[in-house]
Amino acid sequence: MRIRVAGVGLTKFGELWDKSLLDLALEASRDAISDSQLAISRIDAVFVGNMLIGKIAGQDHLGPVITSSLGLNCASFRIEGACASGSLAVHLAIQGILAGTYQHVLVVGAEKMSDAPTSQITWALMGASSSKERKAGLTFPALYALIAQAHMQKYNTTREELAYVSVKNHYHASLNSKAQYPFEITEEKVLNSSLISSPITLFDSSPITDGAAAVILSADDSRRLPAGRQVYITGSAVASDTIDLAERESLTELKATQIAGKIAMEQAGVSIKDIKVAEVHDCFTIAEIMAMEDLGFCSKGAGGKFITGKSTRLGGKCPVNTSGGLKACGHPVGATGVKQIIEITEQLKNRAGQRQVKGANIGLTQNVGGTGATVVVHILQI
Amino acid sequence: MRIRVAGVGLTKFGELWDKSLLDLALEASRDAISDSQLAISRIDAVFVGNMLIGKIAGQDHLGPVITSSLGLNCASFRIEGACASGSLAVHLAIQGILAGTYQHVLVVGAEKMSDAPTSQITWALMGASSSKERKAGLTFPALYALIAQAHMQKYNTTREELAYVSVKNHYHASLNSKAQYPFEITEEKVLNSSLISSPITLFDSSPITDGAAAVILSADDSRRLPAGRQVYITGSAVASDTIDLAERESLTELKATQIAGKIAMEQAGVSIKDIKVAEVHDCFTIAEIMAMEDLGFCSKGAGGKFITGKSTRLGGKCPVNTSGGLKACGHPVGATGVKQIIEITEQLKNRAGQRQVKGANIGLTQNVGGTGATVVVHILQI
Repeated sequence: MRIRVAGVGLTKFGELWDKSLLDLALEASRDAISDSQLAISRIDAVFVGNMLIGKIAGQDHLGPVITSSLGLNCASFRIEGACASGSLAVHLAIQGILAGTYQHVLVVGAEKMSDAPTSQITWALMGASSSKERKAGLTFPALYALIAQAHMQKYNTTREELAYVSVKNHYHASLNSKAQYPFEITEEKVLNSSLISSPITLFDSSPITDGAAAVILSADDSRRLPAGRQVYITGSAVASDTIDLAERESLTELKATQIAGKIAMEQAGVSIKDIKVAEVHDCFTIAEIMAMEDLGFCSKGAGGKFITGKSTRLGGKCPVNTSGGLKACGHPVGATGVKQIIEITEQLKNRAGQRQVKGANIGLTQNVGGTGATVVVHILQI
Repeated sequence: MRIRVAGVGLTKFGELWDKSLLDLALEASRDAISDSQLAISRIDAVFVGNMLIGKIAGQDHLGPVITSSLGLNCASFRIEGACASGSLAVHLAIQGILAGTYQHVLVVGAEKMSDAPTSQITWALMGASSSKERKAGLTFPALYALIAQAHMQKYNTTREELAYVSVKNHYHASLNSKAQYPFEITEEKVLNSSLISSPITLFDSSPITDGAAAVILSADDSRRLPAGRQVYITGSAVASDTIDLAERESLTELKATQIAGKIAMEQAGVSIKDIKVAEVHDCFTIAEIMAMEDLGFCSKGAGGKFITGKSTRLGGKCPVNTSGGLKACGHPVGATGVKQIIEITEQLKNRAGQRQVKGANIGLTQNVGGTGATVVVHILQI
């Protein structure tokens, strides 16, 4: 597999009161098309990643909403898989290109979350979970708190190790002007922030975010490539698990991450040791620690120690979440998976400015839906 | 393109108070897997077509809900494009197979509409339309009534011609035990039924339906095919148009049907004259008349006369909507596109019983989202 990331476009992430979902999606899409140097008429399919706008604003059928706003009559699709919607859209766009059906595809992930009252957004997000979990009154912080407690009990993972994920990702975000929270925080700040669901505090949690991210993916057969370094997606895999946490064999691992990570690396012909930069799904701090383990960056249970060892901090061996991650860059759920692809692309193109990882030539993204019922892993290479 | 329809499964369509969306989706899925004679473990991806369950019951993230209920950890996706969700799922599943990523794919379209009160279902369905149309207080019968009025004015299409579509499709449904309304009606019954939005009456309109439809699609490289006639999808195309009716150049044609029809027939190497049986999107009676014109079965404006000429009735040259169509078989929106594929498959396999079209060797499906913002056309052949 060798799919070229021909262009990228990313809006500011944050509480963007003056912009609609369509405003955001079109801004990112037009920037990506412009970055690709392709005439807009050459786009022959549009894949939209979005989870919530139907429930929040009543609007479904986003494919043609965006496609026709760009003046196109081409094929269009909306893909939904909770917080993994964006990277599922990337995966399916890749299939359309590999099939030979489409040549140049726009993938745009977008979410407008700040318009809805908290009770509505909480209800809407719980659609990613099971009906049993909803009936039990569980919310996502509570579900991840159960996971965190199990991990702390089984592997002696500490509260401070969780907090360090947030501190690191805020440091990275402080170097990213697109981030929702571009400032540093201290471990003390995380530990003393409001308790949401023990052990998870406010600063262990990703925020409610508006934003959009778009990429142009192209078949690797263009005769005249634009100047500069080219970046390719060389692995793309999706795996599923039970949507209900109670039905899993283990609370302390995400089987779908293990499966998707293995397949994607096999496709690309790389091993975890080759990865120089990664974006993983840190919706809550425990999730990044588990991702390190389940992807094989470290052994099972060693994630806390691995993270605080600083090899995943900028300057370390394999910086993780250089964008600031979901925690500090923000988490507009349908956009997140596409934003991860953009961050790795910028790193591999040597365009990441102050947060550039030196010598980055192979990168990985991991995007999770719900508590791991969907996981998507991509490998990117120069 | 040559994708084998390896198995089909269809639930009864109707008001199924004692079954949940998951019950229906699993019943259809298991029947399709059984029909394919494949071990369930050989399914390597699941594509779910669904529009409404998030809004009606709060449940999104249907991919892994269904996949894990089948005991699988494979890739899973939910595809949404309003009433075209099912056939968009078929199209994307085909891309995954053509790409070589997946070998045997389950596509399941499902909808559970009868649980919601009318006001909620009307709101939910209007997500297929534009925010301007919603704000104007338009509903889908009203939007299609505008189309019907324009068509009647421009082409002298008559009220009786519209009614005939319903009469014909109810006749077909009377031969289909899976249909929601398996009985015949008269033209008088249609004309005298409650006026919904002039000229559309209750019996010009497809109903609220619960149901699920599933197909197994396979790469055409199996060494040992099961006994019996094989059916292949040889064309699959998607086109988009403005979601807002007011932004179209013409109210009396669906540009997306014209584009998708042309591409799908080119892919398959067939012309409209080769089609022996078709399932088209008769959400309202005017829609079937327009589909005849836009697909090229007859010239523009001649759809009313063409339909009443009885060539599309069972026994005619090319029977259309032998299942009973959306009108009389029922319209569980996410399932409809998949059900169309099943009806054509059964016809081509010579398994359609009392409604069998003799000598059917090439068939077509046309599935519409909204008022034509999304259109998907498939060609099937033996």
